[in-house]
Amino acid sequence: MQTRPPLRELGLNSGKLARLHRILFDHGLGNGTAFFLPYDQGLEHGPRDFFANPQASDPAYIVKLAVAGGFNGIAIQVGLAEKFYWDYAGQIPLILKLNGKTDIPPDAEALSPVHASVEDAVRLGAGAVGYTLYVGSPAQEADFAQYRKVREDAHRFGMPLIVWAYPRGAAIAAKGGNDSFYAVDYAARVASELGADVVKVNFPHPEKTTAVKPAYQAEFSSQQAIDAVVRSANRTLVLVSGGEKAGDEAMLLKARQAMEAGGLGLIFGRNVWQRPYDESLRFVDSLKEILAAHPSE
Amino acid sequence: MQTRPPLRELGLNSGKLARLHRILFDHGLGNGTAFFLPYDQGLEHGPRDFFANPQASDPAYIVKLAVAGGFNGIAIQVGLAEKFYWDYAGQIPLILKLNGKTDIPPDAEALSPVHASVEDAVRLGAGAVGYTLYVGSPAQEADFAQYRKVREDAHRFGMPLIVWAYPRGAAIAAKGGNDSFYAVDYAARVASELGADVVKVNFPHPEKTTAVKPAYQAEFSSQQAIDAVVRSANRTLVLVSGGEKAGDEAMLLKARQAMEAGGLGLIFGRNVWQRPYDESLRFVDSLKEILAAHPSE
Amino acid sequence: MQTRPPLRELGLNSGKLARLHRILFDHGLGNGTAFFLPYDQGLEHGPRDFFANPQASDPAYIVKLAVAGGFNGIAIQVGLAEKFYWDYAGQIPLILKLNGKTDIPPDAEALSPVHASVEDAVRLGAGAVGYTLYVGSPAQEADFAQYRKVREDAHRFGMPLIVWAYPRGAAIAAKGGNDSFYAVDYAARVASELGADVVKVNFPHPEKTTAVKPAYQAEFSSQQAIDAVVRSANRTLVLVSGGEKAGDEAMLLKARQAMEAGGLGLIFGRNVWQRPYDESLRFVDSLKEILAAHPSE
Amino acid sequence: MQTRPPLRELGLNSGKLARLHRILFDHGLGNGTAFFLPYDQGLEHGPRDFFANPQASDPAYIVKLAVAGGFNGIAIQVGLAEKFYWDYAGQIPLILKLNGKTDIPPDAEALSPVHASVEDAVRLGAGAVGYTLYVGSPAQEADFAQYRKVREDAHRFGMPLIVWAYPRGAAIAAKGGNDSFYAVDYAARVASELGADVVKVNFPHPEKTTAVKPAYQAEFSSQQAIDAVVRSANRTLVLVSGGEKAGDEAMLLKARQAMEAGGLGLIFGRNVWQRPYDESLRFVDSLKEILAAHPSE
Amino acid sequence: MQTRPPLRELGLNSGKLARLHRILFDHGLGNGTAFFLPYDQGLEHGPRDFFANPQASDPAYIVKLAVAGGFNGIAIQVGLAEKFYWDYAGQIPLILKLNGKTDIPPDAEALSPVHASVEDAVRLGAGAVGYTLYVGSPAQEADFAQYRKVREDAHRFGMPLIVWAYPRGAAIAAKGGNDSFYAVDYAARVASELGADVVKVNFPHPEKTTAVKPAYQAEFSSQQAIDAVVRSANRTLVLVSGGEKAGDEAMLLKARQAMEAGGLGLIFGRNVWQRPYDESLRFVDSLKEILAAHPSE
Repeated sequence: MQTRPPLRELGLNSGKLARLHRILFDHGLGNGTAFFLPYDQGLEHGPRDFFANPQASDPAYIVKLAVAGGFNGIAIQVGLAEKFYWDYAGQIPLILKLNGKTDIPPDAEALSPVHASVEDAVRLGAGAVGYTLYVGSPAQEADFAQYRKVREDAHRFGMPLIVWAYPRGAAIAAKGGNDSFYAVDYAARVASELGADVVKVNFPHPEKTTAVKPAYQAEFSSQQAIDAVVRSANRTLVLVSGGEKAGDEAMLLKARQAMEAGGLGLIFGRNVWQRPYDESLRFVDSLKEILAAHPSE
Repeated sequence: MQTRPPLRELGLNSGKLARLHRILFDHGLGNGTAFFLPYDQGLEHGPRDFFANPQASDPAYIVKLAVAGGFNGIAIQVGLAEKFYWDYAGQIPLILKLNGKTDIPPDAEALSPVHASVEDAVRLGAGAVGYTLYVGSPAQEADFAQYRKVREDAHRFGMPLIVWAYPRGAAIAAKGGNDSFYAVDYAARVASELGADVVKVNFPHPEKTTAVKPAYQAEFSSQQAIDAVVRSANRTLVLVSGGEKAGDEAMLLKARQAMEAGGLGLIFGRNVWQRPYDESLRFVDSLKEILAAHPSE
Repeated sequence: MQTRPPLRELGLNSGKLARLHRILFDHGLGNGTAFFLPYDQGLEHGPRDFFANPQASDPAYIVKLAVAGGFNGIAIQVGLAEKFYWDYAGQIPLILKLNGKTDIPPDAEALSPVHASVEDAVRLGAGAVGYTLYVGSPAQEADFAQYRKVREDAHRFGMPLIVWAYPRGAAIAAKGGNDSFYAVDYAARVASELGADVVKVNFPHPEKTTAVKPAYQAEFSSQQAIDAVVRSANRTLVLVSGGEKAGDEAMLLKARQAMEAGGLGLIFGRNVWQRPYDESLRFVDSLKEILAAHPSE
Repeated sequence: MQTRPPLRELGLNSGKLARLHRILFDHGLGNGTAFFLPYDQGLEHGPRDFFANPQASDPAYIVKLAVAGGFNGIAIQVGLAEKFYWDYAGQIPLILKLNGKTDIPPDAEALSPVHASVEDAVRLGAGAVGYTLYVGSPAQEADFAQYRKVREDAHRFGMPLIVWAYPRGAAIAAKGGNDSFYAVDYAARVASELGADVVKVNFPHPEKTTAVKPAYQAEFSSQQAIDAVVRSANRTLVLVSGGEKAGDEAMLLKARQAMEAGGLGLIFGRNVWQRPYDESLRFVDSLKEILAAHPSE
Repeated sequence: MQTRPPLRELGLNSGKLARLHRILFDHGLGNGTAFFLPYDQGLEHGPRDFFANPQASDPAYIVKLAVAGGFNGIAIQVGLAEKFYWDYAGQIPLILKLNGKTDIPPDAEALSPVHASVEDAVRLGAGAVGYTLYVGSPAQEADFAQYRKVREDAHRFGMPLIVWAYPRGAAIAAKGGNDSFYAVDYAARVASELGADVVKVNFPHPEKTTAVKPAYQAEFSSQQAIDAVVRSANRTLVLVSGGEKAGDEAMLLKARQAMEAGGLGLIFGRNVWQRPYDESLRFVDSLKEILAAHPSE
């Protein structure tokens, strides 16, 4: 089992430390782990994601679910934050997602344009900001340029920066795809090299070896892969995302392995809210049992 | 008994609401009351205030005391915030005091110069900012000018603004002094008129009637006076300060009356830390019993 | 004996830490103590200070003396820094003094106007900046306003901020003068409250009790007084200044007491360079023996 | 043997001079030569570079190695600098790499996007900044535009500018490749023409004559080639990079020739840390023997 | 005889060096000395200064005289520079005076307000800028603030900065007046401490000992006094001004002593143009003979 580095040894300034501490110790299980509810799919995929559970189309339903489920925070775009967060302000941490895009144009030169600022997040009383970095995209220049402003502002305002580090674009597609161990491992490292405080990654698939770099063509277990990803992120804390809704057992296994690897926690959206309310809470409870077993020292 | 207005009915924006909610419900008694520890006397009066309990000279001692005593926050200047708050960041809310002065020059034209910004407060992860307004001072123009910038920034960043509303200067001295019912009532109202979210006042002395405006020369009980002060502040929440160290019974009475009046809570410094550690905590417990009896609905 | 807090526990950001570390461990005795040579008297008093040793009028002589004497840094104004430091750039740390004044006008409302910026200091390759704060002066508002900009810039650029904390002006004159224990103790605390990283104070005179606050009218030894001053400064490191040239034995005693009190070190100008070169170096050696006995852990 | 120009004759301003002096004389061998450890491969190539020595994945391991090996500095990206440098701040100079990219997209139109600023470097207490210029890339316009801002800021803040001058892109591939004598010689000159203070080049391969400009199709020894490259850089000091891990003898020969040519020093990463700790230090010692034989006058 | 420091050893940046070199070696005697014609009296005193030689009221007359007399430059305000300099642009260096005032209000709190910028000087093709600093004036704060901007701009644009360092105001009047050795010596030093490249001083009067600091109450010859002033200015080059028209022999003696002291040269206005044209040129020739005897090495 790998261990998570203590908050106080990450070189964070006072504001980042205070905000992360509140998220990790005043909310959720309060044991230093994180369990976030992302709800940016309305922008990223459109309302089709809500067809499985039409109530999930209503942001108020989701915020209530997040409070009831005892999450450490909810990640939403600025529009929903403006219109729904004041109602629960302070009851659950807000992670303001600063960029996003529709999935209508093709992803070959993917870039997630910034549409809100760190200052918006401060004004709304957010606990952290989120930024999607498309690692390996040919649009890397524009991505790094807008990311740099976000990183600098996040530092200036003491706001923790969570990077959604997603391999994307034509080049990585040609090198084994978005979720190979190679791609996810590289993405985690890039977020760390560029100054993310927390990185959200998809669970790596070490069995996807076609066309990846030779070093990744050996045999690795899932646990070995996620262990390596967390090490690559070093002092950037790691969140494992749920991705598309999948079988619960598979999800719980991923969660367990992520926490064994020294991950900070989980960020599960569709797997949580694409089911009826009570079932959501039951699934949430199973995940929280895993988190409860991995408190920070 | 007067009742405190609920947070959600004060017209606060999302950030101010989130931050006040965290201060009032994630810390202290978590019942919507406030109990703050002010520690700006090192600047305002100099180290002589620490002679009664030399340990109190050490800011680390004070922060530890605030955490141990279960306070809702600690009010300090930027220098101590930079050097001591990171050690406890997130464990207790920080109220960054933005102005202050030494008591070396005379007070006839008192003005408390700004030496830190709301942006400093955001950066440090503070939960609120504090500003001393010297109500009635001939330096009122400079005071209002610098206050206006603070108020605007506090609004822009969603940072709750706590005003230390202190009658001060030659003119109020000639009209009955700093702590008459007349002076304190007027000060509370000025803070409210100028946009304070919370106002800190000294307990009013209705028996000081010499030279005050005729309306205040009638007989008023202490309770009537503090009731009126809280009404004057309307949707600006009221904190009653302890002032110089005095007898415990007198203090507890003041505290009880303040809470009966619908006050938000207490801000007691010297009365708390100018005694040995254990005695401090015992006194704090007596005060918290009073707060516990006045939860928000 | 009181101990000095370790650099790493002062809440300093990376830049301030790196620069202070270089000053304290790559120069002078390299043992974590500081011995600085101030040379701003040409502005503060005029060339008359050089009459005792005319060579001292030449800044090149002084920089050479600082290098030969193994000082941890030299404190000069921007004009001399521009014209003389390049010649020794990197060989000895530069402390750029950002404000200063002539002693021609009276001191009743003393203010030391800023004439250089933290950015000048960065550009010149300085290791720290210096600012004179006239504690208790009626010009406090203007002083705090210009100081605040310096503090913010120093934080932004990671530049250690050394405050010359000098009680000054009509009000302190009426309360026992500039160098009473009361005045010096208060000045040290003010620098700490306002965010100085290092404070330069004059040695306190506990025997000057006339007109000081009652708490300071008791009997205190020199050692007790300097101990208290260092405690008042808490995580702001303390430099004791030499002031006007005086007897060597008296100076060495002051130095010894300052270091016993947990001071960071000494800043001696006129006592060093108002004598012939060889004699300067001999006196410097006696002082360095004292510093050598008080290494940082 | 060619000689290195003295620091004081390079037209550097005071800040650049002070910072270079500290790097070259307060660290490493302290004899005016430079030995840097670059650690930007996590971004440039991904974690696969750490598979040979998994410990090297941990930036803390690398910083410790750099301190133990007595390097003159470590070159890292902003994310690792924020999270790891404070721990060693001042103990070893930081070279903040301001741009970088993943190697996922193809290199035909290579551009290394800026993701950090010279001001970040100042704030972190860095001793120099690094910029990768892809000489000959079709993306030259965007490259020069972002480089110009870096150069101007580096001058304004007195921060030495080290240019990684790398021939790259489709056009140079068609003219003999990235490491021909022609390409490297041209790259060194470009850095010098555009204002680099130090230039990092790969060792030139004079035997790669296919498709290079006629002037470079003659027979040149390795020594003649590196001599020419250093002359082309004139008052821009030259660092020779190790590149991919190769045989030790070959590396030592390159190093010796680079120093004979009047180079400033070496910048070796993978050749150092892609082996066990003790072996790294042994190899470092062999390289330092070479540097020791070429002190600055 | 004291010697003047060579231009290349003054720490000047490239632009200041280039402009000073042109002034000192392409104009006047071309031997490294300076002879400037100041013509700001129309603002400082009004047209009454032209009554002695009415032609001098016409700026065109003065510029012609400066060209004919072989001066190294002419110092004028922006209005005359705009309307008259284009006619002779490049034929004689322009020193743009950036501040000035009328002599109508009293001088007790003298301040010379800025009315033109260094950027104006660049635009006009000036060779240097001039600034009047009233050393010791109670208006010191405002003076330092506007001076600081001029100094920073002069550095940024590589424009030599000539400071008219004039003791002035109630406080210096009470300490022996504007032209005592004490006052002039202090003024020269202040200009140097604050970053002047060249300082213009009045000739010191060592015989004025009433009320000056004790160090200046000893007996000093004129030569000893001017020697000391030049030493106080150290690497700031010294110009001695003529002041009010006086006897030629006295003037020539001052000039000779100034050059013996290592001064850069002379700046004589009224003594030159308050007489008929031919007589002016004859007097100029006598002064140039003195300058010719003191070439730079």
